[in-house]
Amino acid sequence: MDFEAPSPADLLARYGEVRGTTARLCEPLSAEDMLVQSMPQASPTKWHLAHTTWFFEAFVLAELPGHRPFHESFGYLFNSYYNALGDRLSRPKRGLLSRPSLAQVMRYREHVDGAMRQLLASRASSNLRRLTLIGLHHEQQHQELILTDIKHALGGNPLKPSYRDRPAALAGVAPPLRWMEHPGGLIDIGHAGAGFAYDNETPRHRVFLRPFRLASRLATCGDYMAFLDDGGYSRPELWLSDGWDACQREGWQAPLYWEKTEGRWWQYTLAGPRRVREDELVIHVSFYEADAFARWSGARLPTEAEWEAVAADVPVAGSFLDADRLHPAPAEENGGGTAQLFGEAWQWTASPYVAYPGYRTPEGALGEYNGKFMCNQLVLRGGSCLTPRSHFRRSYRNFFPPDARWQFSGVRLARDL
Amino acid sequence: MDFEAPSPADLLARYGEVRGTTARLCEPLSAEDMLVQSMPQASPTKWHLAHTTWFFEAFVLAELPGHRPFHESFGYLFNSYYNALGDRLSRPKRGLLSRPSLAQVMRYREHVDGAMRQLLASRASSNLRRLTLIGLHHEQQHQELILTDIKHALGGNPLKPSYRDRPAALAGVAPPLRWMEHPGGLIDIGHAGAGFAYDNETPRHRVFLRPFRLASRLATCGDYMAFLDDGGYSRPELWLSDGWDACQREGWQAPLYWEKTEGRWWQYTLAGPRRVREDELVIHVSFYEADAFARWSGARLPTEAEWEAVAADVPVAGSFLDADRLHPAPAEENGGGTAQLFGEAWQWTASPYVAYPGYRTPEGALGEYNGKFMCNQLVLRGGSCLTPRSHFRRSYRNFFPPDARWQFSGVRLARDL
Amino acid sequence: MDFEAPSPADLLARYGEVRGTTARLCEPLSAEDMLVQSMPQASPTKWHLAHTTWFFEAFVLAELPGHRPFHESFGYLFNSYYNALGDRLSRPKRGLLSRPSLAQVMRYREHVDGAMRQLLASRASSNLRRLTLIGLHHEQQHQELILTDIKHALGGNPLKPSYRDRPAALAGVAPPLRWMEHPGGLIDIGHAGAGFAYDNETPRHRVFLRPFRLASRLATCGDYMAFLDDGGYSRPELWLSDGWDACQREGWQAPLYWEKTEGRWWQYTLAGPRRVREDELVIHVSFYEADAFARWSGARLPTEAEWEAVAADVPVAGSFLDADRLHPAPAEENGGGTAQLFGEAWQWTASPYVAYPGYRTPEGALGEYNGKFMCNQLVLRGGSCLTPRSHFRRSYRNFFPPDARWQFSGVRLARDL
Amino acid sequence: MDFEAPSPADLLARYGEVRGTTARLCEPLSAEDMLVQSMPQASPTKWHLAHTTWFFEAFVLAELPGHRPFHESFGYLFNSYYNALGDRLSRPKRGLLSRPSLAQVMRYREHVDGAMRQLLASRASSNLRRLTLIGLHHEQQHQELILTDIKHALGGNPLKPSYRDRPAALAGVAPPLRWMEHPGGLIDIGHAGAGFAYDNETPRHRVFLRPFRLASRLATCGDYMAFLDDGGYSRPELWLSDGWDACQREGWQAPLYWEKTEGRWWQYTLAGPRRVREDELVIHVSFYEADAFARWSGARLPTEAEWEAVAADVPVAGSFLDADRLHPAPAEENGGGTAQLFGEAWQWTASPYVAYPGYRTPEGALGEYNGKFMCNQLVLRGGSCLTPRSHFRRSYRNFFPPDARWQFSGVRLARDL
Repeated sequence: MDFEAPSPADLLARYGEVRGTTARLCEPLSAEDMLVQSMPQASPTKWHLAHTTWFFEAFVLAELPGHRPFHESFGYLFNSYYNALGDRLSRPKRGLLSRPSLAQVMRYREHVDGAMRQLLASRASSNLRRLTLIGLHHEQQHQELILTDIKHALGGNPLKPSYRDRPAALAGVAPPLRWMEHPGGLIDIGHAGAGFAYDNETPRHRVFLRPFRLASRLATCGDYMAFLDDGGYSRPELWLSDGWDACQREGWQAPLYWEKTEGRWWQYTLAGPRRVREDELVIHVSFYEADAFARWSGARLPTEAEWEAVAADVPVAGSFLDADRLHPAPAEENGGGTAQLFGEAWQWTASPYVAYPGYRTPEGALGEYNGKFMCNQLVLRGGSCLTPRSHFRRSYRNFFPPDARWQFSGVRLARDL
Repeated sequence: MDFEAPSPADLLARYGEVRGTTARLCEPLSAEDMLVQSMPQASPTKWHLAHTTWFFEAFVLAELPGHRPFHESFGYLFNSYYNALGDRLSRPKRGLLSRPSLAQVMRYREHVDGAMRQLLASRASSNLRRLTLIGLHHEQQHQELILTDIKHALGGNPLKPSYRDRPAALAGVAPPLRWMEHPGGLIDIGHAGAGFAYDNETPRHRVFLRPFRLASRLATCGDYMAFLDDGGYSRPELWLSDGWDACQREGWQAPLYWEKTEGRWWQYTLAGPRRVREDELVIHVSFYEADAFARWSGARLPTEAEWEAVAADVPVAGSFLDADRLHPAPAEENGGGTAQLFGEAWQWTASPYVAYPGYRTPEGALGEYNGKFMCNQLVLRGGSCLTPRSHFRRSYRNFFPPDARWQFSGVRLARDL
Repeated sequence: MDFEAPSPADLLARYGEVRGTTARLCEPLSAEDMLVQSMPQASPTKWHLAHTTWFFEAFVLAELPGHRPFHESFGYLFNSYYNALGDRLSRPKRGLLSRPSLAQVMRYREHVDGAMRQLLASRASSNLRRLTLIGLHHEQQHQELILTDIKHALGGNPLKPSYRDRPAALAGVAPPLRWMEHPGGLIDIGHAGAGFAYDNETPRHRVFLRPFRLASRLATCGDYMAFLDDGGYSRPELWLSDGWDACQREGWQAPLYWEKTEGRWWQYTLAGPRRVREDELVIHVSFYEADAFARWSGARLPTEAEWEAVAADVPVAGSFLDADRLHPAPAEENGGGTAQLFGEAWQWTASPYVAYPGYRTPEGALGEYNGKFMCNQLVLRGGSCLTPRSHFRRSYRNFFPPDARWQFSGVRLARDL
Repeated sequence: MDFEAPSPADLLARYGEVRGTTARLCEPLSAEDMLVQSMPQASPTKWHLAHTTWFFEAFVLAELPGHRPFHESFGYLFNSYYNALGDRLSRPKRGLLSRPSLAQVMRYREHVDGAMRQLLASRASSNLRRLTLIGLHHEQQHQELILTDIKHALGGNPLKPSYRDRPAALAGVAPPLRWMEHPGGLIDIGHAGAGFAYDNETPRHRVFLRPFRLASRLATCGDYMAFLDDGGYSRPELWLSDGWDACQREGWQAPLYWEKTEGRWWQYTLAGPRRVREDELVIHVSFYEADAFARWSGARLPTEAEWEAVAADVPVAGSFLDADRLHPAPAEENGGGTAQLFGEAWQWTASPYVAYPGYRTPEGALGEYNGKFMCNQLVLRGGSCLTPRSHFRRSYRNFFPPDARWQFSGVRLARDL
């Protein structure tokens, strides 16, 4: 925890804002919706609500003398994966928890909110303030998961109900893709400075890059349809071996949530099903699909170092969760720079998720937050339209297994020079 | 459908009663509880509510000219297994249906209730009245499943919440087990007469039985504990080969819902966890366990013909759902007869579930009700404390796979003479 | 063991004959062929050779004072399923045993043959002679399995090699199917007399049968093709529920070993692939397929009691293993009786494999021979062209799970009168 | 194929040598041994013999005008994973191929050897000579797999037969582990020059390294036992998340082939079971185990760039296959340098197997050789005592999934400076 502790007042304000956002995301949902777990990798909304609350209880409040847990079983129920904090419910069983009821979970949130506010208003040490800030970033991560998980739950329901009916505006014509050159060389990447970052973004370190070119925008649905039309899902030579196996085993024919009806592609969005537009960004592709599409395009995926080298000089702008679109905005002409680096859709990189040179796992249970997952996953960069803006940094490393498709994951191409 | 159609007035009264009972069973449950599907074999309460309603719509109302379905997708969502009625949602996905909401399903029930009442009050042909009666028996079957499925859902929740808090009275001392002789010979079994019965209870037919002895009461938890204490779950010589495989694979150590805490056996009941009493009936054993326990006892399970031969002369009495105990009553001295033949707990028989000689599958979709399941299942007899009394007949054949444990299934022993 | 012990001289002769037949069956096979295990349910020839030998060692020779096992590990390797005789190799691993080599296994056979011959020539008690006779019947059972298992191993090889090149003669025109009436009534079935029978054929007992009709011959490939052509494998209404699931899951389109090439059906036989002839018997169908075919035919499968009631008065004749055809003979006109009751192809019955009334499991390890499998299997009757004639009796009950297809299993239809 | 084509004479000599070595490796094995496939990831020896031969036929001889394949089905049977070359037998079925017989496969080898010798002696273009050289390296790769696969097959046999009885000498005392410093900086890694290398070793490229320390020798069994004794296999905090899951799921308690008997560790070797010596190298650990052991040691695994930076200056020496030990030699004092960099045991690195910057997949079917596996695997470096010396280069990148344990994979530790 090498970052500066925020001031109590700032933290209190931020605490209220983050917790409030989570509550707001649940507004369109019924208690029933919030219980559904549509696959082992996803969690019910209610579980997210309780787990993020438990995080504050377990990592902050439990440090206070005389702390008594709100409920003796909630540690067991709402611990996600911290072995250091004891046994826990098996992950695929989260959707079976009709009890505690949503009302009880909301009381749990209120209880912890009260204790946290009291703590932050008075006597919170800088250590507890840092832990609280981690808890807030943790909750912001779960805000994105709440939305991707409920999209999976509702999108798999044969009734295809919308999360909310207001669709995002879709105007806009995607500009032609241009190749932006970068000279490579010795570059520093990773988090620097006193602001908050996760341990996995550190230490800042030097890498040597060859010259490369990066696509000026993300891939569109039109780009991707050309891949589909060219037999992309039936040509093994375009795929990684494990990717082809996954494609065959899962019967992939198109991105997740795409369905062909009477010769036209439709996609399920958080505002319900609608036609796929050629100018909008393709999302919900796995790393395997992104990689095959890149190969078919005569390109490749960028490494995370390449991405960060370019991103370093571009102002962070784009549709984050704060824009409340819940779907990526189409690319617009931006005067010749590299567009859509931030927000919109996570960008698969070619980089396996591994420790940065000199990385050290933090002490204690929080050491399990990031480090133990550094295997069999790929890094995604840039944030998405579901990522809270204040949660994001240029050095942010998101990571998912190569077959994951339910995140808002898109594609930016790269090429050697 | 060889049974007499009930009079419109009787049917209307019965319709109200059965539908009302289903509603009453849901009273202790929240919308969240009613969504949980704890294993593929079990269904959410909400699904039961909609499926039993769909049954009336699909088999009765759809016969009416000009019928329009309540919702175009409900046939897909709430058809259980009728291939003749089209595609349907895969069974393990029933627990993902947060939509339609419970409120919508209740409106569906009201809508169908209105249409059914109107039909029964006016112009229902004898054929439609017979179909309606089948629908009512169908719903009564699901009443028992609602309770066994919710017991599984709540009993698997680490909080072990009760379905309702009022425990059944437990007074009573189990009388010693006596062996009641039956001379065997040529016996007629199966349904006779003009009253309602399922097709699988017909035709009534003759069987030849050797003399045999039947236990005067069901096996108690005390009886079963002696089996446990004698290493019953670790001695393969007591088990069928498939049973031993199941026992090893599933890690069975005792009946479902039993747990040993500090050297004592507890069981989860619909009123929550409580100590196991030696004098109460053992339930929640699979056929494999019942068979192994019988072998260890130097006995065997009765065939369904043996059971029915004895039951023919005994008045139907015992705790059915109407007694509202939700747990079997202990055996009581009954003056020397064969006790507990009815209600309390289903009794595993040694008889595979097959067609009676001369059995004919009914025409149409209703032919799928019973006939297509006549393989890989065993017959249980006698009803349980969750079976509605008016749903039960001496000729009633319940059936489950040999490893099923979540029904209220107990053991009655038999012996050759 | 209620049968009479054979005389030492007869037994010695029979021992030589049975063991010699086993050796002869292996003549066309290489050491490599004899090692293949093509599915968990099948065993390598070499394993059969060793297991049948171990049976004599474990059940006969081990009874002799001072007996020392041939090899300390062979009990572990070659015990099939006798829990009473200790741990054993997991079944799916039998195909990994390149050691002991075939040569070692042949030495094992010679060693045990020597000891058995010495025993039988001198001092064998009637008990040991009875055990020896069981061992010989056991080996004859495995002779059939050697052939069905190697057919599966070679038939699954893309090269489709033949077991031996000499095809069985195929002349013959199937006579029209006639329905033979039987009046039903009280019938005795099961083994009677002092000759050898397995425990599961006893006790002889009385059953009451309704009048019925039995097909005069087995179903032919022509009969079955009509079922195929009428969409038999795509109409769920013809199938048991579990059968339809198996059909879908396994992708069944026709009997095992059938393949359509350029519009014509071919089948793999022990003499290699050849065209399917309409007049020959259909084999390699599961119970589920036999049952669906019967339903499509407007008929049903006979019960084992019906089968035995008819078979009681018919002389045992037909192609058994001794005829050395290795494929069923086509039906021929036989003057109006019920043909093909014996040999040719096992006939699926509608009867689940359960204990006869009054059945008692034998004491000791041999009690595991039959009794513990009395669940989830169906009875087949009549023997096949791979069954040694001297192994067969009218009361013989073969049994397999309903989805088993690699045995020589065919179909005889029945109807209610 | 950027390497120089060898001269025809050199190539002919090398061809004879490599093919002869393969034959020699099979000498201790029977036809039965050579058929066993003990897990889907392993292949039968016979399959290796045929596949390596098919490689020459498919990639070299098929280029010749008028070429006719030796057998029309061998492409289907012995193609490993080249989608561009058509359909193929599913991998887990390789162990079912009793036909073609070993004798036929040996004839196949002779046939192809004849054609190859004739080609190399006369008219081979430089392109065909390059393809031949690839085929020889390919066969050398399979030489190592023949030995690791047969070790798995024989080691899993309850009889635990040895591959050959001659054990490797075990004298030697492991020197204390020292930490060798490296200053880091800009380093070039990857293959350079005109000699042969696989595509995945290219292009040579620059990386920036921080200063680091590398262990002076590989980890010994004594080192690893200390990890075991300290509860290494029951402390999740030492493991990657996926690694801990694998450990639990597979029940790992120690390296593969280790077994505790009466309180002492034994291991199965190619010379049969023997005691584990503290001074010998630990092998047969997965990446997950290597990583956990490193973390427990207060160290980490080196990256492949770190490894290659050190290896660049060390002469290639150590036990390769040519030493014919078939087991790693213990470390010896070597005067202070970094020992055991080559031969002995493959060294897990922390580097996921990905493309080098600027990597280009070769055209055609050979493009599937390496590139399509660049996901979900980790790089191992250094060769092993089963690797042919002439097959090895400092830039050689071996790769296996993180849970693979049947290779001769050991551990070298690293630390940040």
